[in-house]
Amino acid sequence: MDILLAGDFDRDELHSWQRALSLAVPEARWLDAAAAREAPGRVEAAVVANPAPGTLAGLPGLRLIQSLWAGVDRLLDDATLPAGVPVARMVDPAMGAAMAETALWATLSLHRGFFAYARRQQAGCWRTHAQRRAGQVRVGVLGLGGMGRTVAERLVAAGYPVTAWVRQPRAAGSPPPAGVTLQSGDAGLAALLPATDVLINLLPLTDATRGLLDARLFAALPPAASVVNLGRGAHVVDDELLAALDSGRLRHAVLDVFHTEPLPPGHRFWTHPRVTVLPHAAAFTDPDSAAAVVAGNLRALRDGQPLAHLVDRRRGY
Amino acid sequence: MDILLAGDFDRDELHSWQRALSLAVPEARWLDAAAAREAPGRVEAAVVANPAPGTLAGLPGLRLIQSLWAGVDRLLDDATLPAGVPVARMVDPAMGAAMAETALWATLSLHRGFFAYARRQQAGCWRTHAQRRAGQVRVGVLGLGGMGRTVAERLVAAGYPVTAWVRQPRAAGSPPPAGVTLQSGDAGLAALLPATDVLINLLPLTDATRGLLDARLFAALPPAASVVNLGRGAHVVDDELLAALDSGRLRHAVLDVFHTEPLPPGHRFWTHPRVTVLPHAAAFTDPDSAAAVVAGNLRALRDGQPLAHLVDRRRGY
Repeated sequence: MDILLAGDFDRDELHSWQRALSLAVPEARWLDAAAAREAPGRVEAAVVANPAPGTLAGLPGLRLIQSLWAGVDRLLDDATLPAGVPVARMVDPAMGAAMAETALWATLSLHRGFFAYARRQQAGCWRTHAQRRAGQVRVGVLGLGGMGRTVAERLVAAGYPVTAWVRQPRAAGSPPPAGVTLQSGDAGLAALLPATDVLINLLPLTDATRGLLDARLFAALPPAASVVNLGRGAHVVDDELLAALDSGRLRHAVLDVFHTEPLPPGHRFWTHPRVTVLPHAAAFTDPDSAAAVVAGNLRALRDGQPLAHLVDRRRGY
Repeated sequence: MDILLAGDFDRDELHSWQRALSLAVPEARWLDAAAAREAPGRVEAAVVANPAPGTLAGLPGLRLIQSLWAGVDRLLDDATLPAGVPVARMVDPAMGAAMAETALWATLSLHRGFFAYARRQQAGCWRTHAQRRAGQVRVGVLGLGGMGRTVAERLVAAGYPVTAWVRQPRAAGSPPPAGVTLQSGDAGLAALLPATDVLINLLPLTDATRGLLDARLFAALPPAASVVNLGRGAHVVDDELLAALDSGRLRHAVLDVFHTEPLPPGHRFWTHPRVTVLPHAAAFTDPDSAAAVVAGNLRALRDGQPLAHLVDRRRGY
């Protein structure tokens, strides 16, 4: 089986993906974009990580586009993406674990005020604040896909009351994890927000979720709530987030993703005392565990079995 | 039953302790130090939080000194402490949970490099580093009392390989929590250190543990290990810790406790880029849950039942 491997990797990343994929799928022949163009009819599948637009056009034998990244918004934005070829997202258990670590770290930091202690250290200020129990800090998780589920489970295990929200009831798939309250739709969001102290965004970026974290949403949170954006930068209306932080309406924001990445020099997020900036590092796909997921889907393709984690292109995830 | 309540509380703290203790032990009459001096013979027990030296002298009916704090090193340093009166430490489950949160936050921060990301944010630098799995980060916990056990359990649940160390085998009491490897004595410490990426100190301060975190210990850790001190400031030799951080031998230190508290202005810990300073805030005793522990011991005293969490004054904890 000839498989195209293409993405915006640097040299080290490419090597580690080539190594992991070759070990997981030893029967495949892995081609780069140049090699694929020499025998386009032989390419049966493409394993991609935000490939350059046009990379997947002109491959008549293509039967699967497997993303190595969980978010496929940039992939689906490529107007030359061949219609009718199934697209699969990456659902990597190691990435879910890493995302849950970041969400738990952010929640612990907000719950126990460790960002405030860091600011005080910079000011040479020795001052404590009251200690709350985890059970007093209500966490809202937007999105309940693979990662949302892992994050919600981990936060419940840590003692936080967790409510998860999905836009459409069917998007929740199976029942929510034990101990997680589920809300859906506009009414569910309206119910969740006033009862949320830490709001964690893990939604996919679609036309329906773009700009969801705006002034109206922030105003619906209780005073001194905090926001953790682990989804996409375009979920947030930056100016409205800054205004909510400046007014004291919001206590803190932890942001891993941005409209433009890298976050441009001079953007106010870099220096705002109540913003924690991460360089899109909340969770990386793990080449070893992701390669096993790729291998599973490639074997399903070969054997005519159902493919896993297929994207609904119209829905956008 | 007349009970002396004395400590270095501010007004708000005193009120919250008075409220919690009155609710938990409604049958008691609570006296402050001045009231106790008026009828010293009637005081049967003292509930204390680092009381001023001499406070507990001259109370002939005293049968229990119950500390509200877990650490009793300052209490035992009072040369006027009446000999022969049992001293009990506080073992507060809510404080154990808070300590475990802080230990988990510090470990997640070190494991995933969130302190490094905070430094990069200050520099306006967008740069990621490799992501390790929790299973690759070996945690050593010094001390396996009530808090050490809770911390170790929580870290095991988070996926970290955890080894705990006690100075004397018998100090471990019951077997270690599931999944925790136990080491003891000098040989056990020598075995633990080279296999520890994050070292968390939760030992009591005694003559045997003072200054344990010194140049020799830091040199026995693997390169780029980190230290989290949640015990007492005097466990650390400050200059030797700073030298190990400056040389790059140690990656980072999270310090909650110091030789002098508040940490004096101008101390290098305040401004060192690889030191996180907390204002002795890793875990506070929770008045509500601690009052229930006090009530249990006061009732045991009244009924002639065994007292819990008694301190061996010679051992120091």
